Amino acid sequence: MIVDTSFGSDNHAGVHPRILDAIREANSGPAVAYGLDDFTATAVEKFREHFGKNADVYLVFNGTGANVISLATLARPFQAVICTEHAHINADECGAPENYSGCKLKTVHTPNGKLTVDDIGRQLAGRLDQHRVQPSVVSITQASELGTVYSAEEVREIAAFCHGHNLYLHMDGARICNAAASLGKGLGEISGQLGVDMLSFGGTKNGLLLGEAVVCFNPELSKHTLFIRKQAMQLASKMRFIAAQFTALLSDDLWLQNASQANRMAKLLEEKVKGIPGLAIVQPVQANAVFASLPRQAIDKLLKKYFFYTWDEDKNEVRWMTSFSTTEKDIENFAAAIRESCK
Amino acid sequence: MIVDTSFGSDNHAGVHPRILDAIREANSGPAVAYGLDDFTATAVEKFREHFGKNADVYLVFNGTGANVISLATLARPFQAVICTEHAHINADECGAPENYSGCKLKTVHTPNGKLTVDDIGRQLAGRLDQHRVQPSVVSITQASELGTVYSAEEVREIAAFCHGHNLYLHMDGARICNAAASLGKGLGEISGQLGVDMLSFGGTKNGLLLGEAVVCFNPELSKHTLFIRKQAMQLASKMRFIAAQFTALLSDDLWLQNASQANRMAKLLEEKVKGIPGLAIVQPVQANAVFASLPRQAIDKLLKKYFFYTWDEDKNEVRWMTSFSTTEKDIENFAAAIRESCK
Amino acid sequence: MIVDTSFGSDNHAGVHPRILDAIREANSGPAVAYGLDDFTATAVEKFREHFGKNADVYLVFNGTGANVISLATLARPFQAVICTEHAHINADECGAPENYSGCKLKTVHTPNGKLTVDDIGRQLAGRLDQHRVQPSVVSITQASELGTVYSAEEVREIAAFCHGHNLYLHMDGARICNAAASLGKGLGEISGQLGVDMLSFGGTKNGLLLGEAVVCFNPELSKHTLFIRKQAMQLASKMRFIAAQFTALLSDDLWLQNASQANRMAKLLEEKVKGIPGLAIVQPVQANAVFASLPRQAIDKLLKKYFFYTWDEDKNEVRWMTSFSTTEKDIENFAAAIRESCK
Amino acid sequence: MIVDTSFGSDNHAGVHPRILDAIREANSGPAVAYGLDDFTATAVEKFREHFGKNADVYLVFNGTGANVISLATLARPFQAVICTEHAHINADECGAPENYSGCKLKTVHTPNGKLTVDDIGRQLAGRLDQHRVQPSVVSITQASELGTVYSAEEVREIAAFCHGHNLYLHMDGARICNAAASLGKGLGEISGQLGVDMLSFGGTKNGLLLGEAVVCFNPELSKHTLFIRKQAMQLASKMRFIAAQFTALLSDDLWLQNASQANRMAKLLEEKVKGIPGLAIVQPVQANAVFASLPRQAIDKLLKKYFFYTWDEDKNEVRWMTSFSTTEKDIENFAAAIRESCK
Repeated sequence: MIVDTSFGSDNHAGVHPRILDAIREANSGPAVAYGLDDFTATAVEKFREHFGKNADVYLVFNGTGANVISLATLARPFQAVICTEHAHINADECGAPENYSGCKLKTVHTPNGKLTVDDIGRQLAGRLDQHRVQPSVVSITQASELGTVYSAEEVREIAAFCHGHNLYLHMDGARICNAAASLGKGLGEISGQLGVDMLSFGGTKNGLLLGEAVVCFNPELSKHTLFIRKQAMQLASKMRFIAAQFTALLSDDLWLQNASQANRMAKLLEEKVKGIPGLAIVQPVQANAVFASLPRQAIDKLLKKYFFYTWDEDKNEVRWMTSFSTTEKDIENFAAAIRESCK
Repeated sequence: MIVDTSFGSDNHAGVHPRILDAIREANSGPAVAYGLDDFTATAVEKFREHFGKNADVYLVFNGTGANVISLATLARPFQAVICTEHAHINADECGAPENYSGCKLKTVHTPNGKLTVDDIGRQLAGRLDQHRVQPSVVSITQASELGTVYSAEEVREIAAFCHGHNLYLHMDGARICNAAASLGKGLGEISGQLGVDMLSFGGTKNGLLLGEAVVCFNPELSKHTLFIRKQAMQLASKMRFIAAQFTALLSDDLWLQNASQANRMAKLLEEKVKGIPGLAIVQPVQANAVFASLPRQAIDKLLKKYFFYTWDEDKNEVRWMTSFSTTEKDIENFAAAIRESCK
Repeated sequence: MIVDTSFGSDNHAGVHPRILDAIREANSGPAVAYGLDDFTATAVEKFREHFGKNADVYLVFNGTGANVISLATLARPFQAVICTEHAHINADECGAPENYSGCKLKTVHTPNGKLTVDDIGRQLAGRLDQHRVQPSVVSITQASELGTVYSAEEVREIAAFCHGHNLYLHMDGARICNAAASLGKGLGEISGQLGVDMLSFGGTKNGLLLGEAVVCFNPELSKHTLFIRKQAMQLASKMRFIAAQFTALLSDDLWLQNASQANRMAKLLEEKVKGIPGLAIVQPVQANAVFASLPRQAIDKLLKKYFFYTWDEDKNEVRWMTSFSTTEKDIENFAAAIRESCK
Repeated sequence: MIVDTSFGSDNHAGVHPRILDAIREANSGPAVAYGLDDFTATAVEKFREHFGKNADVYLVFNGTGANVISLATLARPFQAVICTEHAHINADECGAPENYSGCKLKTVHTPNGKLTVDDIGRQLAGRLDQHRVQPSVVSITQASELGTVYSAEEVREIAAFCHGHNLYLHMDGARICNAAASLGKGLGEISGQLGVDMLSFGGTKNGLLLGEAVVCFNPELSKHTLFIRKQAMQLASKMRFIAAQFTALLSDDLWLQNASQANRMAKLLEEKVKGIPGLAIVQPVQANAVFASLPRQAIDKLLKKYFFYTWDEDKNEVRWMTSFSTTEKDIENFAAAIRESCK
């Protein structure tokens, strides 16, 4: 199904032209496989410009892979990972985290997709009880699956709590660029510098053809990650073509331009539809998603022309995602259609 | 490390220009993710032209993924997979097959990388003994890791034996195009039509940027493979960019041209180096690999200029791989360097 | 820690004398190991007297083992098991079900430890969505972890729903004897005959030294369970000593006498403490557990003399378990102590 | 199948009377479950008398459980375990070690069931290569599966090699008592004191009803073993009944008497059958097994009266095991029958 304009997901977008150029340029003669090439070395250096010189970087295929490798690095099979019910690792990865890491996920219901220190604390009952899995990792998603963004202070507080309670902090950053753009901060400033131990850095949703990265801020923790990546089936042979994309994304603020455009379009959509009778915005629009409730028949009408997901059937809540390739014209047309459908 | 000419692996090659064109053409507007797009539908149709209309096709990232998904489809965790010691699933996947499928590999020592019916039969002792893992799959590699090729008759015989003994037959076809070119037969003719149940179809080593496929010839077997692919972390979001590559590869005989060129270059290399004093060709050159033994100091001299792998340190055996991008000039230069190094 | 009287768990009790006699009698000369002995054959026949002649029976060490083997028989790793939050498989097995079966547990919050058809139905959203684990098993606990008992009608309704929705029904019967005694029905009448597909039959909590059984009511489902038991590390070599215990338990109504005694003592305890000011019974007493709330300081006083578990720290809820070896005198003394502590 | 005299396995024997007495004595009133009882504390102290005061001890159900818990403690899923082809963990545990630990076993063919330092060294090729599993544990069996015994010096040499190469040493001691009796040394003297890191200590084959123990000589290594035992389904609720058996076995040299009797009977059998025409002893008789080859028709005749296993069908090799309960009379009768069958 090809769609004219999709609000289904930021991964319905194509590849940014500068990323495609980078791929073409990397296609010059042979290169050693499995990451031992110069393109990969360059990409790793680029990551270190953003995340600090100690950052240990592993390029992988997709977000599920990045998350699972991070969790398997930080937790052993009898341990547990604390996350929200909405966390991608819990809701959308077909059990891959439990299956590969062996760990149980301990999930928390949250109204806005964001964990709090209190939520985490409540999951620590049963520590040292041999019948219970032992929490060793907290995983937060930035920006969250509900389009909200943790403030720097919130992440710092969670990190401090984790480290004070013998827990590691993982950040699922499938949309970390959107979060950084939203907060007006650098990528390292909102992750490693706040105490995050391991990061799944998302590329695909921000303009890459395909590619994510595992970034570890403490190389002692990731001393086995090389092997975990391979065993988790996430080692690319022609790695240079993933590496070259990341080098382009992380150069000349392309990551920021793409994320900012996506965020701006979400904000614009919010503005255009606010006040439509029968429609309510149900989450703060802080990144590139708009969550709204509207009448069932309005949803049905819209779905005939546009692709997007109903998030909660019972509440008539929908999710509209924007991407780097969404234009103001797209938003105007879509907002008009929404208004029309609500009549 | 960028290298002028590499004989290290066929995945040291870049991307074929027609593949790169296909990627660029697929980059037009939004498309639904996770394989529900038209590009993927087209690619699947293309596979069915080659493999028959019942072929059930799953596009994935890499060969380890394709193999593991195939095995996990065909075997349950208390079962076992019979393969050669040299099999990629045994030697080169960091335990991913055992880890994800839960299965044990029962390995057979072979002189030439090819299993026989007798080898398989000997591994069936202990059936119904509750202390032993229960073989349920045989996995053969075509072309094999030692550059040899199973004849159609050999595969047919193995398949018949398997089906007569309650075993499924998996083919690791990371280089099936090279095998088909070598045998002068079609892709379906040397897999499903001979009784292969599941195939890992290799794209990356034959000119793709990245992409492999799981092909199942009996849809009843693969009714859960959709979920296994996702849980095995091998589901691409922007699937169209893998799909478009396969459509190009499987059109206008590109798969055959690429594989034939690689095979011809291996044969040419064999011819050029045969008879060099101190050098021996140690495996039949039937696909795109030349296995040779030569003096240690000759190997060391060559490695200063060319990239390739020593296969067996004790026996001074090396592996030289060719690819679609290897040229006659490359071979001439390399053969001359080999001759020089052996002086 | 030896305790005079424990209300901590029914597994704080010792071994019933008739069980110990059975063990001693089985200790006569050599016997083939791993279940191929006559004692095991006799035990299996005994099970079939209760559960029907098609019952397929596997003796194992403990309840976690029985549950995990059942789930691994009925579900593949990308599938899911629906159960309550309180389910032993979720709360008390240190992640063994997920770890061995590879499956995710989808948990439901319930007030009384019992699943309903509506609960199950709500967990079926996302079927056929490749990003979601696919529910294939429902697991209910009879008697439940909260001391409640499903009526025959409730189980029949759940079974019918399961079978109408392509789900198997597993019953964790660690305390199925208590449930049967409570309902005044036979063991088969409240499991297989109602549509349960697989049962973890509990022996240890009802007077055995050690031993549980997996009972499958459809031998087609359990055709691989022999190997799953071994791979799950639950195959005893000197099996006859587990078998002989079960033969004794299932003969001459010993299972019923033991369970009835435990149930009666719980009921007696409820009667004796009802009406004590500050104390409330918080779950129906239907098997051998009494759940009560009482003032924190009363709990603390009691814990100095008696062993039991605080179930919910926030609500000052405690769990008092009785067993086959609990006497009326034990209850009288304990009730008096409770009354005293609440003053 | 009950058999008058079995040479099938040492686990065909029953329970030693002193062990049964210990079980009966432990059956006095309630005791806290899961190992928090006094019987377990006493057993652990008893282990420490033999293995040193730092020994960290975990009682479990069976040998497969003890082995798997040891390996899962010492290795992570992308790592590997080096052992012989004949190792119980490789040949007789239905893939449980790979399945639970996630690790691959790297097996070595040996003539006599004993690993050497050279064998281990050859398995270390490919270290640091991300495509290969990374050896982290060596597992040896003492006495071996072929009835041979490592000398103290051999174990010391292996341990030193392991520790010099970043490997842990696990000993599968299902028959360690037989080995100690054979060597005339103490249990600690032939394990922890030689550098063994973790030991599976066998009880069942030496007179217990059921029970094995994991003994770790470096508590830092086993800091998570409590949880691994539970997740591996090996935590007994009424632990006191396993503990009491071990206390009896490890007191008053019962372990030594039992093992010595078994060893003596094997030696006696060897003496009595040596020289029978057509019969050859094919392994040194160093513990409680006799491996012999004899004509196929002699084997068939014997199997009509006695239970034992043919070890190698092709070579007509059989395994005769003796146990604590084997008598001189048993041996005399059996030897006469062997002699008769060879006529």
